Amino acid sequence: MRVWLLDNGSIVIEHTQLMWNVPGPQARIPVYSVLVEHDDGLFLFDTGIDLDHMNRVLPFELPEQTEEQTIPAQLALCGFSLGDVTAVVNSHLHIDHVGGNQLFKGTGVRHVIHEREVAQARNHEPFEFFGYSDKSWDYEGANIETFSGDTELAPRIRLIETPGHTIGHCSVLLEGDRPLLFAMDVSYTASALERGIQPGFHYDPVAGVRAIARVKEVAAESGAEILYSHDMDAWNGYTRAPGHYEV
Amino acid sequence: MRVWLLDNGSIVIEHTQLMWNVPGPQARIPVYSVLVEHDDGLFLFDTGIDLDHMNRVLPFELPEQTEEQTIPAQLALCGFSLGDVTAVVNSHLHIDHVGGNQLFKGTGVRHVIHEREVAQARNHEPFEFFGYSDKSWDYEGANIETFSGDTELAPRIRLIETPGHTIGHCSVLLEGDRPLLFAMDVSYTASALERGIQPGFHYDPVAGVRAIARVKEVAAESGAEILYSHDMDAWNGYTRAPGHYEV
Repeated sequence: MRVWLLDNGSIVIEHTQLMWNVPGPQARIPVYSVLVEHDDGLFLFDTGIDLDHMNRVLPFELPEQTEEQTIPAQLALCGFSLGDVTAVVNSHLHIDHVGGNQLFKGTGVRHVIHEREVAQARNHEPFEFFGYSDKSWDYEGANIETFSGDTELAPRIRLIETPGHTIGHCSVLLEGDRPLLFAMDVSYTASALERGIQPGFHYDPVAGVRAIARVKEVAAESGAEILYSHDMDAWNGYTRAPGHYEV
Repeated sequence: MRVWLLDNGSIVIEHTQLMWNVPGPQARIPVYSVLVEHDDGLFLFDTGIDLDHMNRVLPFELPEQTEEQTIPAQLALCGFSLGDVTAVVNSHLHIDHVGGNQLFKGTGVRHVIHEREVAQARNHEPFEFFGYSDKSWDYEGANIETFSGDTELAPRIRLIETPGHTIGHCSVLLEGDRPLLFAMDVSYTASALERGIQPGFHYDPVAGVRAIARVKEVAAESGAEILYSHDMDAWNGYTRAPGHYEV
């Protein structure tokens, strides 16, 4: 299968958010989505930030997103449009992973989300306010399809439960000759995962410890390369759309 | 009953530890213990920092503790010595609440600690390393007496389960004409409790939300004044040993 990384811009966060309780300088981190062309359809994992929402509710994160970094422009880079997407899958429902969901309104696209994540985002803890502040994924008529447990979305595409950062957080394993494991927000960076450090925003840090171990186990068992969601150094080395990975 | 606040010095922490995910300047915070003279005995709640441990393992917290701020010196200010203490009760087993426990070695004093806290401190999560790094409370021959559930330690002295910061964290309510509620580390400061913000170090933030609500409820029901564990402004207004509160 063919895999593109879609650049959705960047935001600035505190170092203690990048690495829980570890002081350091603020960091500008990338936000991106993953597009997978598969025999069963075209799958989009996460949808980046909605710049308007960010500027309105979290301007202190200094969001940056050019027109070229929006989902439609990034899809076009790969030769697709919104209507070509079979399913939009969210690793979780935080602001920087759902911003483009609303663009699919009217397409009837399947929105695949963990059932506990949907419930939590609709009725969250007070400390989750900023993370779940963008509710636009829950648009009228959204065709939301929930799942629970590790799930085979399609042959060689596995959703792996890795809760902790959020209650329904999932990582994504793409199996093949060159397997890729998108850890998503289990740890934001390679260094954080290596050191066993989870993000400063989390729902259940004890589960988060298990999720870090799970990502390492799955990578070891599958031989997959781990890709990090918010690691600027790693991101600068990744092949981005229109370039692609052949898995 | 008569209540003294025993000054045990101070440490410096990140603002995101004082208030989870809220950036701001580092803060020097007080560390103190609470001595209660009661018909059933002399009770000591928490025992501050062990300066040697802090300097060895957490020097970056810039610990300060003069000889006058040690437990023996503070007890002497109130007219007591180590041997007069009936029971030492720890709200939880973090470094800044257990440092003086070891001083009671050989006295046979009862060490009263929540059963889940004892188990956790002996076998903690990796992210709890610094918090539980001082193991000296678990000295050979320590007469550890565990409890579980809200517990009446003695008439008018109630231990109230408020987990979240740690798994077995408890607050202390002293009932009387002038009731006092020691929130301990549910929230470090009056402002944090008011805003519903828990400390950056925690075991279960969802439980922490409930603990904040519980402290507010207990204070409202009992009419107790809430005292904060690490609020420098509040601390500067408290009566400290040798002065005392009459509850």
